Amino acid sequence: MDQTQVAMMGSVTSPLGFTAVAHAAGLKKENQLDLALVVSEHACSCVAMFTKNQVVAAPVIVDRETLAQNSSQLRAVVINSKNANACTGDPGLANARATQQIAADVLGCQPEQVLVLSTGVIGVQLPMDKLEAGILAGAVGLSRENGRLAAEAIMTTDTHPKHLAVTVNLPGGMVTIGGMAKGSGMLHPNMATMLSVLTTDAAVAPDVLDGLLRTAVNRSFNRISIDGDTSTNDTILLLANGASGTAVADPDSIAQFGTALNQLCTKLAHMIVRDGEGATKFVEIRVTGAQSEADAHQIANTIATSPLVKTAFAGSDANWGRLLMAAGRAGIAFDQTKINLWIGVRQPDELQLVANGTPTDYQEVDAAAVFAQPKFKILLDLGSGGGGTAVVWTTDLSHDYVSINADYRT
Amino acid sequence: MDQTQVAMMGSVTSPLGFTAVAHAAGLKKENQLDLALVVSEHACSCVAMFTKNQVVAAPVIVDRETLAQNSSQLRAVVINSKNANACTGDPGLANARATQQIAADVLGCQPEQVLVLSTGVIGVQLPMDKLEAGILAGAVGLSRENGRLAAEAIMTTDTHPKHLAVTVNLPGGMVTIGGMAKGSGMLHPNMATMLSVLTTDAAVAPDVLDGLLRTAVNRSFNRISIDGDTSTNDTILLLANGASGTAVADPDSIAQFGTALNQLCTKLAHMIVRDGEGATKFVEIRVTGAQSEADAHQIANTIATSPLVKTAFAGSDANWGRLLMAAGRAGIAFDQTKINLWIGVRQPDELQLVANGTPTDYQEVDAAAVFAQPKFKILLDLGSGGGGTAVVWTTDLSHDYVSINADYRT
Repeated sequence: MDQTQVAMMGSVTSPLGFTAVAHAAGLKKENQLDLALVVSEHACSCVAMFTKNQVVAAPVIVDRETLAQNSSQLRAVVINSKNANACTGDPGLANARATQQIAADVLGCQPEQVLVLSTGVIGVQLPMDKLEAGILAGAVGLSRENGRLAAEAIMTTDTHPKHLAVTVNLPGGMVTIGGMAKGSGMLHPNMATMLSVLTTDAAVAPDVLDGLLRTAVNRSFNRISIDGDTSTNDTILLLANGASGTAVADPDSIAQFGTALNQLCTKLAHMIVRDGEGATKFVEIRVTGAQSEADAHQIANTIATSPLVKTAFAGSDANWGRLLMAAGRAGIAFDQTKINLWIGVRQPDELQLVANGTPTDYQEVDAAAVFAQPKFKILLDLGSGGGGTAVVWTTDLSHDYVSINADYRT
Repeated sequence: MDQTQVAMMGSVTSPLGFTAVAHAAGLKKENQLDLALVVSEHACSCVAMFTKNQVVAAPVIVDRETLAQNSSQLRAVVINSKNANACTGDPGLANARATQQIAADVLGCQPEQVLVLSTGVIGVQLPMDKLEAGILAGAVGLSRENGRLAAEAIMTTDTHPKHLAVTVNLPGGMVTIGGMAKGSGMLHPNMATMLSVLTTDAAVAPDVLDGLLRTAVNRSFNRISIDGDTSTNDTILLLANGASGTAVADPDSIAQFGTALNQLCTKLAHMIVRDGEGATKFVEIRVTGAQSEADAHQIANTIATSPLVKTAFAGSDANWGRLLMAAGRAGIAFDQTKINLWIGVRQPDELQLVANGTPTDYQEVDAAAVFAQPKFKILLDLGSGGGGTAVVWTTDLSHDYVSINADYRT
């Protein structure tokens, strides 16, 4: 029996002992929310994963330093949208550290107990007066009711906030994991332009938490792709404050907690894909029969990021030639005469389009009917005899994607 | 003094001893040209470069086999558009070989003296009756006047034919190199969806020709990118028939001939980029200060294929943050505090946007003025202390690209 319950209206404040606040600090126009604080009553274990981009924002540098010194006594996360604090040099680093200090002073903790996240435009210094006033004004409103608003405050081109929670009955008692994320453009394996804060009231040691987060992220956030780009700021944080009184330490509890965390991360990742810039389709691409999972992932990802494939999705054109072509340029050797390809709406193998590298006698109208759906699945079997399998989720490349990104700064 | 003269109205029939014909064989609709023959009076040395895609079309397989047996006695190339003869299995291979035989019978040569090229839709068998009738009907019209029409017959989504010729005064006499190409979508390093036939009346041994072609292609066709996709059919052929009576064998002649060939290939490659699907901008991206040319090329190419960069081009938005972000995800290590970035219309270093990783005090209006031009240049210096440099040419990602590719098969 699955011990996990999913609460789609849940958030980072669903786990016990967490509060949040959202504030319009004046970084965005017209009084929109642009600043969020997530605070734990108790000190937290905390682990993080950061962008693999060579160009990293000041908050990424500062958070890496902070977590290297302290991964077990974290108290708060400050997140601003609209300004990425990237390519801002030494002043940018000083501003990120000043933000830690401002929040620590307000919350009565040490600056090394505070993490900072930023997302938005690159190359502009943070307006520290606005940020400081916002943190001071906002902190008085910290509440368990504000998880959803915090998810709204971290949005950039997202069209709606992304948040949920899961509860899981462990042998030692019930624990809750909450989360929020912002995504939209620049999404890619390696977590491009994504921020996510995950919270739990389980008691978990940092080293256990680290392994669980890496596993969950590799099967969720690192399997989604909007446009193949990655950002300077991508960060995912997981804070565990132990407020439930239930420990995740024995193998059974770790396994169950891990499954629930995977589920939470996968759902958040899917929300991000569905809200991809200009996205009108949600497509699952499954590659099987590869020599390894890495090979399968590489091929699935090459298909998922191919502009020609993604424009075919946008046009509801079941152009399988482009799928095979994209697979063929992934840099992974395979035998084209052993390829099989299926598509489907509910199951990925409802309609076979290609058998042993050549088209079946399927009817174009049937294939088009699948691709016309807002959500469909593709299954490519390489027939290598190997057991390598991977799934990625992606979107189409639409006119709206071009519109959104051609005019982002105006 | 540059010994090379460029004839923009030249073509594959500009070199002595070559004829061509274009014919409407009925593969395309409405009597459009869809079949071309290029024929040499004399047997030719011939070398080729093919797609690196794992999924390759029947003509690629057949031409590889043919050239492996015979690289010094080629007589003709048959090219059809509209149908790629890819993912067509054994019948597709048989059709490609039958095409060789049909052309050989008409021209009075052996099938292994004929190469075949196809481009178009994947997964549909060639209509051999139409193709045979077309070759028979077309062959009677072979003429030196038809080089331009041949370039028209090989077009798919190209908006105009691409052809030219260069002449070069070698110590032994004047020789001519002619060429045609089709490109448009799916263009990428590794020659995606590109066909090109190059001809010369110089006498050049296959091994010399091979080295010269590889060098020229690596600095031209492999440095252009429209959308990062590559095709099942990409092929570039170079035929040398010796009809000028001038040999390219001594080092000086080889060097001069090589320079002229580079020039021809670069101009054809630029024509392809300018005619990229939906392209409204022609952008040169130069990366310097890398540890190696390969590193510089990898970074330049990652920038050139980034959807976020390309939509910024489309929107005339000098969003340098996206340029740096794309550079940062190329998988090449560098120090972000040593990056310098310039843009310009005539020279790439007219306006510096980034110095040591942070923005200069440039005026947005000046940067926007550069990006508003139909043609501009970007120079990114990594400051690694290494001498690695590379140039790539690319386009923007426009609404028209989406329109063209969402509805390609309809």
